[in-house]
Amino acid sequence: MEQAFLAYLRGRCRHLPQVAVGIGDDAAVINPSDGQLVACTDQIIDGTDFDSRRFELDGHRWADVGFKSIAINLSDMAAMGGKPQAVLVTIALPNENPSRIAGDVYEGILEAAAEYDLAIAGGDISVYDGPLSISVTLLGSVPSGKAWLRSGAQEGDAIFVSGAVGGSLRGRHLRPQPRIQLAKRIRELEICVHAAIDISDGLSLDLDRLCASSGLGAELEAEAIPIHADAIERAQETGCTPWEHAWRDGEDFELILTMNQEDAKQISKIDLGVPLTCIGEIVGRTGMWKRNLGKLERLMPQGYVHGKSTSQATPESS
Amino acid sequence: MEQAFLAYLRGRCRHLPQVAVGIGDDAAVINPSDGQLVACTDQIIDGTDFDSRRFELDGHRWADVGFKSIAINLSDMAAMGGKPQAVLVTIALPNENPSRIAGDVYEGILEAAAEYDLAIAGGDISVYDGPLSISVTLLGSVPSGKAWLRSGAQEGDAIFVSGAVGGSLRGRHLRPQPRIQLAKRIRELEICVHAAIDISDGLSLDLDRLCASSGLGAELEAEAIPIHADAIERAQETGCTPWEHAWRDGEDFELILTMNQEDAKQISKIDLGVPLTCIGEIVGRTGMWKRNLGKLERLMPQGYVHGKSTSQATPESS
Repeated sequence: MEQAFLAYLRGRCRHLPQVAVGIGDDAAVINPSDGQLVACTDQIIDGTDFDSRRFELDGHRWADVGFKSIAINLSDMAAMGGKPQAVLVTIALPNENPSRIAGDVYEGILEAAAEYDLAIAGGDISVYDGPLSISVTLLGSVPSGKAWLRSGAQEGDAIFVSGAVGGSLRGRHLRPQPRIQLAKRIRELEICVHAAIDISDGLSLDLDRLCASSGLGAELEAEAIPIHADAIERAQETGCTPWEHAWRDGEDFELILTMNQEDAKQISKIDLGVPLTCIGEIVGRTGMWKRNLGKLERLMPQGYVHGKSTSQATPESS
Repeated sequence: MEQAFLAYLRGRCRHLPQVAVGIGDDAAVINPSDGQLVACTDQIIDGTDFDSRRFELDGHRWADVGFKSIAINLSDMAAMGGKPQAVLVTIALPNENPSRIAGDVYEGILEAAAEYDLAIAGGDISVYDGPLSISVTLLGSVPSGKAWLRSGAQEGDAIFVSGAVGGSLRGRHLRPQPRIQLAKRIRELEICVHAAIDISDGLSLDLDRLCASSGLGAELEAEAIPIHADAIERAQETGCTPWEHAWRDGEDFELILTMNQEDAKQISKIDLGVPLTCIGEIVGRTGMWKRNLGKLERLMPQGYVHGKSTSQATPESS
């Protein structure tokens, strides 16, 4: 089925200038970017990252899964301040109904590609005795030496979070809006982002990773954290507070950014199309701290850790 | 387990100049190549592409699978005339013994990376309810506009095949020797390769694909095809002739190359470290033909077609 499906796919793909040779040869040839190449990869597996048996219950479709497989990589690209160019998509299809599932999944992939001007430059398809698995590699570019790293935070930096966080499991998590446009706008403004990470495992865990990578800590105005309406709804179901959901729920796919106070002041005056909220400051003392009436209370990272079954996580250094 | 394993992996990876930011951030940053970027991806799945239940019987190990997951991509890179630079490796691990299998698989991956000066620039690891699956994306470069495409063959071109073909299932297929060095040597000689493909599904099928992509055909000196010793051994088991095995067995990972007769003459005089055998000529008449005492006999493509269970294949156009 691979050959027939690739033929179908070639017909569905637009030709984009960043790809010189697309699907159908031994490899794709991508035109050199004007800076450094950025590459990220992420996989999504039925039964681990989502559950197709709940599709009817949750109102989700295979197309959502396809869309998400691209979107989670775009979110990583945004967190590098990168401009996405092309994807390679590898799919392992279950034995049952592989053609129908492949077609449905690709509806979502093609939708994401069209929305973000992404070329589908290649891929691989297999049918096997296992659940649907999609592995996407996204290629993009950044101006040379200007990638936004996790490790670049500096003492005194303002910490921003985009959008609002928490409760994404109520449905948002399958149709994430990666912050590609926001990253592009910030680059155009020549704001110097010192450090960035996307929130995939939870605000607290991912902020902790950024701090650990930078060898620094964070003091937070806890009440400034922008809480999503979904976190409030979710709190009514779980008995946790909306703030707790905002702090630890995963799959927000928002950005955490740090920059110096001058840039922070400048950016706060500009309409970026997405809210950007200052939630605290990078400090020399490691760990995460909540400012409370002049005192500091330790905040522990909580969220989703791959391969662990508890929601309480130990601090991570990656 | 992802975080701990990534930490282990960072420790095992050499720093190579082509990678500015490696494992541990949202994406890898790769230094711009001096030409165009070449990207290919291929996956390898237990039960589909190999069978771990036969390891003991066949004398294979998880490390071989890891090595092969890189080598099959290197073979595609060689078939583009590309220089490999970095890989992103995504692994889905079975629930049983995931850590041990990941460690063993990575032994082979690290061995291939060391042998071909490849940086491991990133990846993703999941544990799931399914068989081991490895998806590799390989990034490399070619001088701008000089990628070796399947579609570039010209009437009158000499057709070469590297090494010897057939019978790889006797064991060679798990430790392929991708023709990266050969491709590099040919580039250095400034031989102008018109078209190229690697033999993954069989000489006949892959040559047919090259011909179809170029809109041309091939006239072959059938007896010139270099038959591997494994094909002769295999023939004793199957009752087919060694030539039939050379013609249709897959996973040789040799290269088919076409070039004009002048370059063909030049290259035939040079020791390339690997035999390069002229097996025929590109012709205007489509299809593949065997020259026999001044007459032409039609040759049908045969080999492994993904998703088909017969060994007789219909001509393909990709």
